[in-house]
Order: sequence, then structure tokens, then C-alpha cells
Amino acid sequence: MSTLDLRFSEAELEQRREHITAFIRDQVDAAGVDGVVLGLSGGIDSTITAYLCVDALGAENVHGLVLPATVSSDENMSDAERVARDLEIGYDVIEVEPVVNALLSAYPEAEGDREAVGNARARVRGVLNYLVANHESRLVVGTGNRSEAAVGYFTKYGDGAVDCHPIGNLYKAQVRQLARHIGVPDDLADKTPTAELWDDQTDEDEMGMTYETLDSILASHVDGPLSTAATARELGVDEETVETVRRMYERSEHKRRVPPGPDPLN
Amino acid sequence: MSTLDLRFSEAELEQRREHITAFIRDQVDAAGVDGVVLGLSGGIDSTITAYLCVDALGAENVHGLVLPATVSSDENMSDAERVARDLEIGYDVIEVEPVVNALLSAYPEAEGDREAVGNARARVRGVLNYLVANHESRLVVGTGNRSEAAVGYFTKYGDGAVDCHPIGNLYKAQVRQLARHIGVPDDLADKTPTAELWDDQTDEDEMGMTYETLDSILASHVDGPLSTAATARELGVDEETVETVRRMYERSEHKRRVPPGPDPLN
Repeated sequence: MSTLDLRFSEAELEQRREHITAFIRDQVDAAGVDGVVLGLSGGIDSTITAYLCVDALGAENVHGLVLPATVSSDENMSDAERVARDLEIGYDVIEVEPVVNALLSAYPEAEGDREAVGNARARVRGVLNYLVANHESRLVVGTGNRSEAAVGYFTKYGDGAVDCHPIGNLYKAQVRQLARHIGVPDDLADKTPTAELWDDQTDEDEMGMTYETLDSILASHVDGPLSTAATARELGVDEETVETVRRMYERSEHKRRVPPGPDPLN
Repeated sequence: MSTLDLRFSEAELEQRREHITAFIRDQVDAAGVDGVVLGLSGGIDSTITAYLCVDALGAENVHGLVLPATVSSDENMSDAERVARDLEIGYDVIEVEPVVNALLSAYPEAEGDREAVGNARARVRGVLNYLVANHESRLVVGTGNRSEAAVGYFTKYGDGAVDCHPIGNLYKAQVRQLARHIGVPDDLADKTPTAELWDDQTDEDEMGMTYETLDSILASHVDGPLSTAATARELGVDEETVETVRRMYERSEHKRRVPPGPDPLN
């Protein structure tokens, strides 16, 4: 298959950096708060977001939370701490599992339900982000990218529970490219993406395709003007793959909107 | 002061009941799930929502969660259980405090921070709602009304963490009226509203005005066409009170929207 070239030019990369850091500053100013809190997972998305926040606000206004759970790899957690140390930001390491265990003691029926517990773990991280942010009068900054958002590859009210999304307009490939441009170490920029909601999870396994394919289909068909057939032809993929992406997009619509009420009635 | 008459006629009440129950059925059908979960606080909003859900889906498809915390009054919790028993729905009583304590053990800095802990408590309830809902393949139904939503009198990603808002279009006075119409016992419909995020909290004390005043200002000025001066004149309130409501509306805008990313950049 071929893929759509989503790469930025050097000038565009610098323009993006400025655009996103201005956005972060505007969000903090508009809220009248003292800075931001963000979760650090050791993955590229939270790493680039931390770099951009420090660029925008200065290290003293960025608070990192490293939130290990039983399913977190030691490598990712030590990478997360390395990011905080490299950037010289304050950070806390807070174990998530005791809180998850308290939830499961309260509702033991869900024990062993991998998806329900995985989502609860992501939501506990969200609660911890806000506990720190509320206490310190800061915003919670999201680390989700455009590709994940489009297919709903995040936990509603978990990692989705944030005040703003600095890299929300960047496809995964663009995140990787911008990460290098702003100085994220290569080994972090190249890591295999995983949501780490359970053991050995990788994003690409779970979505059933590579981010390259996903990005190209999103940009051509879901966000772009090409039909299913044209996208399949253009990229050299099955129509079924294009339709899979569109279905993921449609089924996750509820995660990207404000919860609805009934239509107005006069 | 005078107030705006927001009451429904008998025919409108019945029309509302049908409109909201159809909405609940549509939400469940569209999601392809087996019913709903909702938190029962013993207050009027969750009580009317439970009644409407049972009306829409049948008792067997509604699961109530009674989630007492140290700041919950015994009266409210026993009212919550009474609602579940009267409606003959399945329900669980799950103590929230052990989970809140696990959070505070993880981040002791927030101990004694009334607002941060109060919000964390509301968020823990949200996580529990979703743990049950995910495990049972149900939607989480919100219990917030239009008055609270407009002034942001709810916890972002706490009681705001839901899949839909059946009574989201009704001002508080209309909730009271519809509650009586559909058979909610008078003593529940007349209770003093409290968010119970901390001891002795009442909504009206915290907002600094009655729901009657709030509803009238919202309907005239925030949701309606009248200027600050015209609203103050019409209702016989200070302009300052009208402006207080508009400021609450503006400052809580971030709670009613999808978290923003940077504007698109070509």
C-alpha cells in the first residue's frame, strides 16, 4: 500500500510549535490559573505535550504525574520520570492500583472484567489529575492526538477528562515528526504506542492496523473528501479497511460530543 | 420581586413526559445496550430521572446506585433506597469514602482541601457509575437539570460524566412540577436541594439566590432576549444579581463544551 504524505515542512513544523504553545498559554490565561498538570506515561504523546507545555509556560508551571499501575511496564514509567527530569519539571509518582483495588472492593462484580477495569484505571488517572490540578489551581492538559480521537481510542471521562488538547489536531505521524523537531529524544519518539490498559496491549494490535494506514484513511476519507472506493484505490488498501475506520469513527461519536439532552420542545 | 412563570400546562406536562421517555429509549437503542445505570441521591433530580427511566425502559432495565459518603445525610440515603424500592428497580449501595480515602492516601497534599476533595468525591461516583455500566453494558444516565447546567453547578467529569441528560432541558421549577405529574412523592419533590459535596451544603446558599430567582434570570436573560436592565426591571431584582448569574454562566462555559484544541492551521 501507499500512504498519504502528512509530513510538515521545516517551516510548518516551527509554525505548529508556535501555534500550539500560544494555545497552551491562552488556555491558562483564560482560566486565570497557575499552570498545568499532565499525566506522563513515557509514551510519545504525553512526552511531546510535556515539552510543548514547558516551552509555553516554563518548567515551574508544569506539574507531571507519573501514575503507574500493575499493567505499566517499568520501561515506560522510567521513561516518564526521565522526561520530567530532562525538562526539570516537578513531578509526583502516584500508584494507581490501590485506588483501583478500592473500587473493586466496592464493586467486586467487575473483577476480571478486563475492559471495565481497564477503563476504570484510566478514569482513576483522570480523578488523580484533577485532584492535583484542583488543589494547585491548574488546568489538566490532555495528551490525545487526532488519530486516537477520531477512532475513539481513549477512555471517555478517563484520559478524555481534560481541559484542553494541545496536540488534538495532529495525526500520529505528525506527532512523531513534531516531537523530533522540538527535541524529544529519538528513542521516545520511536516507541511502540500502547494505552497500557491491560498487559501487552499495543494500539496497532488493538485497532487492527498501523498508525500509517489509520492516518492515511482518516485524512483521505473521514476528515477528507475521498469516497470509500477512492480511498481504497488511492492508498491501495481494501475497502473493508476504510469502512472499518469509518465505523470506528461513527461508533465513537458519543465520546467526542457533549452528552445530549432531548431536543428542545416548544 | 416577581418571577417568570415557567410552569407547564397539564397537556404540556404529559407531552414532556412522552418526549423525555422517548429520548431515553432512543439513547439506549442507538447505543445498542441493555439499559441504564444512574446514581440515586434521594434528591428530586435523580428521583424524577429514575421514574422517567422506569417509565421509558421498564424497571428491569434500570439499575440504581446509592453512593453514600461521610457527608451524605442518612435521610437522603434512605430516601434514595426508598425510590429504588418504590420503583422496584435493582440497586446497590456502595460506600464512596474508601475510594476517596485511597485517593487521599495517594495524594495526601489535598487532605482538608474542601473543594478539591468534594470534587474528587463527585468524580469517584462517576467512576463507580461507569464501572457498573461498563460491566453490565448499560448507559450512564445523568440527573442534571437546565438550571444547574447553565451556572455550572456540577462537577466537571463528576456528576457531569454521563452519556445523556434526560432532564437537561428543564429548569428546576419545571423539574418539581413534572415530578409531581409523574407521581414522585411530594416530600421528595419538596426537599431542599443539596449537592452534598460537603456537610450542610445547600444549592441555594452556595449560589446566593433561590432557584426561583435563578430560573427567572436564566429564562429572561441568559437563555432569553432581555438585557440586564430589562431583566432586573421585569423581575424586580438588582442588576448585580442578573450579572452574577451571567458571570456564573460565562465562567462555567468550559464545563459545557468539548475540551478545545488549537484552531485549525492550514
